[in-house]
Amino acid sequence: MQRLVKLNTNESPYGPSPKALAAICGQTSDDLRLYPDPESTALKEAIASLHGLSPNQVFVGNGSDEVLAHVFAGLLKHDKPVCFPDITYSFYPVYCKLFDIAYTNIPLGKDFEIHLEDYKQPNGGIIFPNPNAPTGRSIARSEIEELLTNNRDSVLVIDEAYVDYGTQSCIPLLKGAACPENLLVVHTLSKSRALAGLRVGFAVGHPTLIEGLERVKNSFNSYPLGRLAQAGAIAAIEDQAHLEETSAKVIHTRTKLVDQLKLLGFETLPSTANFIFTRHPKHAGGKLYQLLRERGIIVRHFKLPRIEEFLRITIGTDEQCNELVLALKEIIS
Amino acid sequence: MQRLVKLNTNESPYGPSPKALAAICGQTSDDLRLYPDPESTALKEAIASLHGLSPNQVFVGNGSDEVLAHVFAGLLKHDKPVCFPDITYSFYPVYCKLFDIAYTNIPLGKDFEIHLEDYKQPNGGIIFPNPNAPTGRSIARSEIEELLTNNRDSVLVIDEAYVDYGTQSCIPLLKGAACPENLLVVHTLSKSRALAGLRVGFAVGHPTLIEGLERVKNSFNSYPLGRLAQAGAIAAIEDQAHLEETSAKVIHTRTKLVDQLKLLGFETLPSTANFIFTRHPKHAGGKLYQLLRERGIIVRHFKLPRIEEFLRITIGTDEQCNELVLALKEIIS
Repeated sequence: MQRLVKLNTNESPYGPSPKALAAICGQTSDDLRLYPDPESTALKEAIASLHGLSPNQVFVGNGSDEVLAHVFAGLLKHDKPVCFPDITYSFYPVYCKLFDIAYTNIPLGKDFEIHLEDYKQPNGGIIFPNPNAPTGRSIARSEIEELLTNNRDSVLVIDEAYVDYGTQSCIPLLKGAACPENLLVVHTLSKSRALAGLRVGFAVGHPTLIEGLERVKNSFNSYPLGRLAQAGAIAAIEDQAHLEETSAKVIHTRTKLVDQLKLLGFETLPSTANFIFTRHPKHAGGKLYQLLRERGIIVRHFKLPRIEEFLRITIGTDEQCNELVLALKEIIS
Repeated sequence: MQRLVKLNTNESPYGPSPKALAAICGQTSDDLRLYPDPESTALKEAIASLHGLSPNQVFVGNGSDEVLAHVFAGLLKHDKPVCFPDITYSFYPVYCKLFDIAYTNIPLGKDFEIHLEDYKQPNGGIIFPNPNAPTGRSIARSEIEELLTNNRDSVLVIDEAYVDYGTQSCIPLLKGAACPENLLVVHTLSKSRALAGLRVGFAVGHPTLIEGLERVKNSFNSYPLGRLAQAGAIAAIEDQAHLEETSAKVIHTRTKLVDQLKLLGFETLPSTANFIFTRHPKHAGGKLYQLLRERGIIVRHFKLPRIEEFLRITIGTDEQCNELVLALKEIIS
C-alpha cells in the first residue's frame, strides 16, 4: 500500500503534549464507569488560568464544531441576518440552515482579505475565523476592537481555530472589568494542541454569553466531555511550552515552504495559519490536486467560484513538505 | 472526609471490560493528533454484528443523551404532539422545549405501569424507556409489537438504557427484511457497559430512520466520537461475556436487596433495571433521603407529584447494599 502524505485536514504534524497522553492513561481505569463532571470545572479553571480570565468566562464542548453549533443556536439566532465572509469555514451556512437562521455573505476583497468596514451594517451577529480559512489571512486585533466599538447590538464571534501560528488573539480583550458584553472567542484543541482525536473545543467571553451557551448545552447534553477528554485537555492546556515549541516548528516550515513554492512560480496568500492557500498562474488547481493525489500526496481543493485555482496545503513536517515540493517540481516542469 | 456510598446515578458498581481499557490505552498515542473516523464505521460494524443487524441500521453519538437530542430534532418534530409517560426520563420534555415540539404526557397507571392502550391516539411520535425510569417497570416485547401494528404513521422510540438487567429488548424486531420502518431502539454504554465516563450511545432501526439521524448529526458535529471513545466502545461491545457476568451480579444483588427491604416494611415496584423504586408506608421519602444522606449514603429523591414518597436506589455492590440496609434499619427502628 502506498504511504500517503496527508496535508489536507490541517492536523498538527507533531503529537500532543506527552503530559496529555499521560493524563489520559491515568484516567483509563475502572472509574470510567462513573459519569464525568458535567461542568468540566477543572478544565474551565485551567483555560481561565492560562488566559487570565475567570472560569465563568469559559464554555467547553465536544470539539469546537459543537461549541459553534451552540453559539449559532444560542447567541446568533435573531431577526436580522448573521454576517460572515463568502469564502470561509463551510460549516457556518450549515448551522444557519440547521437552526433556521438568516445570513448575509460578505464578499472578501480582491486579495481575499476580510474588510471589516463591510460588516458595519445592521446584523444579528458577526462571525469569522481569524485567521480566515481556507485563505490563512488574518486581521489585527486593533481592527477587530474598532469593529466592536461600532457593533454594540449583536454578538461578534472570532473563531480562532488557527490562531497559534502567528495571529493576534482577541482573548486579551476579555480580561478584567473591560470585558465587552458581546465578544466571544472560540478555540479548538484539534490544531495547535494536536488533539483532533480527542474532541475538545472552548469559547471564552463575557459571563452573560457563557450563561446563554450553558443553557443550550444543558438542554442538549449534560455530559459533552468524557473523563478522558477532560483530563487530556487539562494537561494539554497546561503544557504551553509544548504548544509554543511545535507551533514555532510549523511556522518555520511554513516560511520555508512558501519560499520554495515561490521559486516554482506559485503565488501564496500571506498565511498566519498552519496551512497555506496557493495557486500557480500556469497550472489549474484541480489538475495539480489530481497529480499530487496520484503521487500519494493529499492536499485540499475547493471546486468553488474564485478559489478553484487554489490548493490549501497543511503545513506538515519538513520532510513531508520537501516531498510535496519535489512532486510539484516534477509536475510543473 | 466521609466515604460516600453513591447509589444515585445508576452507574455500574463494576468497572468496564478490561478489554475496553486496554483498547483505550492502545489508542493513547501521537495519533490523537489525527481526526477520528467521522462515521465511526468500525463501531457501527461491531454493534451491528452483536445484534445481527446491518451497519446502516446503526447510529452512534456522544452518549445516548446526544442520540436522543438528534432523535427529537430529526424524527419527532411534527404537527401532532409526541407522547410519553408523565413519569419518565426528565430529559424528554427538555428536548421538546429546546426544539419547540408539542408533547402530551400520558399518565402511568395506578401501579406506575405504562398502559400502551393509552398511546393509541394521533401522535407525532411515541417515546418511552423500557424499563421505565425512575420506576424500573418494564413491558413485554409482544406488547410493543402490538402497539407498533396500531401506530404506523409515526416513529416509536424505545429507550433501552437499562435493558440489560432483565428486560426484553426490541432489537430482535429490527432484524432482516421484516424491520419496521418506524421503530427505533436507543442504547447507552453508560450503564451495563460501565462506560459513563467515556460518553457513547447508539440507536438502531430502519436505514431510513438512521439516514435522518445522520443528516442532523452531520449538520451539527461531524466528529461526535473521538478516537478513544470509538476504540473503547468497540472493545466493550465485543466483550459480551463481561456484560453478562456483571449484569447477573447486579440482578442477584437487586433480588436480595428487595427482599431485605421488604423485611423492613418497604414496598418496591417490580424492577428489571439496575435500580429500584421503593417507599415505606410509615416514613416519608424526603426524610429517608435526608437521613441516609447524613450517613453518607446518597440515593435519589424526586419532589414530584405521585412519587415524592419514593426513593430511587441504584443497585451497588453487595457491600454497598448491605450498608444501605443497615442504615435504613437504624433509621426506621
